[in-house]
Amino acid sequence: MTTVKNIVFIGAGNVATQLALALHKKEYNILQVYSRTKRSALALAAEVKASPITRLSEITKDADIFIVSVADHALPKFSVQLYKKNGLVVHTSGFHSIDVLKGVSARCGVLYPLQTFSKEITVDFNKIPFCIEAKNKKDEKILKQLAGKLSSEVRIMNSESRKILHLAAVFACNYSNYMYCVAAEILKEKKIPFKILLPLIKETAAKAVSTCPCETQTGPARRGDRKVLNQHMKMIKDEDRRKLYKIISKQICKKYNS
Amino acid sequence: MTTVKNIVFIGAGNVATQLALALHKKEYNILQVYSRTKRSALALAAEVKASPITRLSEITKDADIFIVSVADHALPKFSVQLYKKNGLVVHTSGFHSIDVLKGVSARCGVLYPLQTFSKEITVDFNKIPFCIEAKNKKDEKILKQLAGKLSSEVRIMNSESRKILHLAAVFACNYSNYMYCVAAEILKEKKIPFKILLPLIKETAAKAVSTCPCETQTGPARRGDRKVLNQHMKMIKDEDRRKLYKIISKQICKKYNS
Repeated sequence: MTTVKNIVFIGAGNVATQLALALHKKEYNILQVYSRTKRSALALAAEVKASPITRLSEITKDADIFIVSVADHALPKFSVQLYKKNGLVVHTSGFHSIDVLKGVSARCGVLYPLQTFSKEITVDFNKIPFCIEAKNKKDEKILKQLAGKLSSEVRIMNSESRKILHLAAVFACNYSNYMYCVAAEILKEKKIPFKILLPLIKETAAKAVSTCPCETQTGPARRGDRKVLNQHMKMIKDEDRRKLYKIISKQICKKYNS
Repeated sequence: MTTVKNIVFIGAGNVATQLALALHKKEYNILQVYSRTKRSALALAAEVKASPITRLSEITKDADIFIVSVADHALPKFSVQLYKKNGLVVHTSGFHSIDVLKGVSARCGVLYPLQTFSKEITVDFNKIPFCIEAKNKKDEKILKQLAGKLSSEVRIMNSESRKILHLAAVFACNYSNYMYCVAAEILKEKKIPFKILLPLIKETAAKAVSTCPCETQTGPARRGDRKVLNQHMKMIKDEDRRKLYKIISKQICKKYNS
């Protein structure tokens, strides 16, 4: 089996940064880091001892694997701009099908780490699920090995399932975070420190982890307590928050009390 | 300063159960546990070596503190049914004002542990914030001491602030949990195990804890990625989920991209 050694990163955003750092630590050879933004290319390249590049034409043809890790909306554009490469070309998107890369290389694949990333917060990949996909068994093995170096949770998943998973992740991560955010704003207006909610947030997440979240739902809507719900609606002055409160409480009431 | 020793619990639900267990462990004397439901009264009373009672008339007049821990919708009814007691009477609700108890006893107060409780999951109260309130300084001290035996996070908070905090907690806990629940349902339909989302859920909560959640918001709506948002809307067939996705993504887009 071919072992991946030389890697090119196309993109220097949150996911690319964390992946490149982790692979560099595992002694993979990061040849180049491409970013349209010179500053981003320089910053990441310096950290992983790679060459920073800002033009797609400068990308080498010869690497074992090209990891295209750019924003979802940019991926189709990049794909058509990338020349045919000799190595395996993969993207890191939960949303896009493997086929977004089919014009780039016959050897294409997906390496999707299911996590929320920031450039600044270093990630321990060990428990992060990697969903991998490739067009042939040989490349699937290569990706399995590569992801396996970073994490113990590697699974083969097709594009259709990955897309569903990505949608579910938007609810579980982005939208739950937005609920925290609304809570933070409500408290801020009354000068109550957000810190006070942290044990509650931790416990809610911990419960979802240990049991099914549908079974651990609590609160006034879960109990169908109209009086509390109506009073809360009266307390909320912001129109967007009112809409949000109304629709979520209504759905919880419907699920548990009808 | 009077030290609380003898406690009566009115209610045997999630909050009452966890509080009574914790206080019993700290060697407080739980005299009685009242519940309308005989089974609940018996179960909790047995665990904390108290007398189970099912009639309000059986409640002793003489205890140091009466903890009324019943569902929010039932609290006003209970309050009028409780006779004048000699001790301090407190409720454990985030929602209700201290004044809901003013007919019961001149010495009334609030002991609100900010957490999501289940009967089955034993809680470590140590880091749980207790919001306390009393009508006089002496009783405030008594509550501070009592809560301080269970937790290092005790703060004095008036009814108005507590009500705001309770509303914020509904978003941060109940509604974020509902987002997990929607994610779990989406995955279940496609037979993808919910377990795969757990590292993401943990990390999202951990980030909210270490920074402000409004700063760590990620995802397609945060980036204003219309293409992903539109595709997600097409993927979601369930009408309620579509509504939910639409309103939340719209609000995130508005907050970060306008």
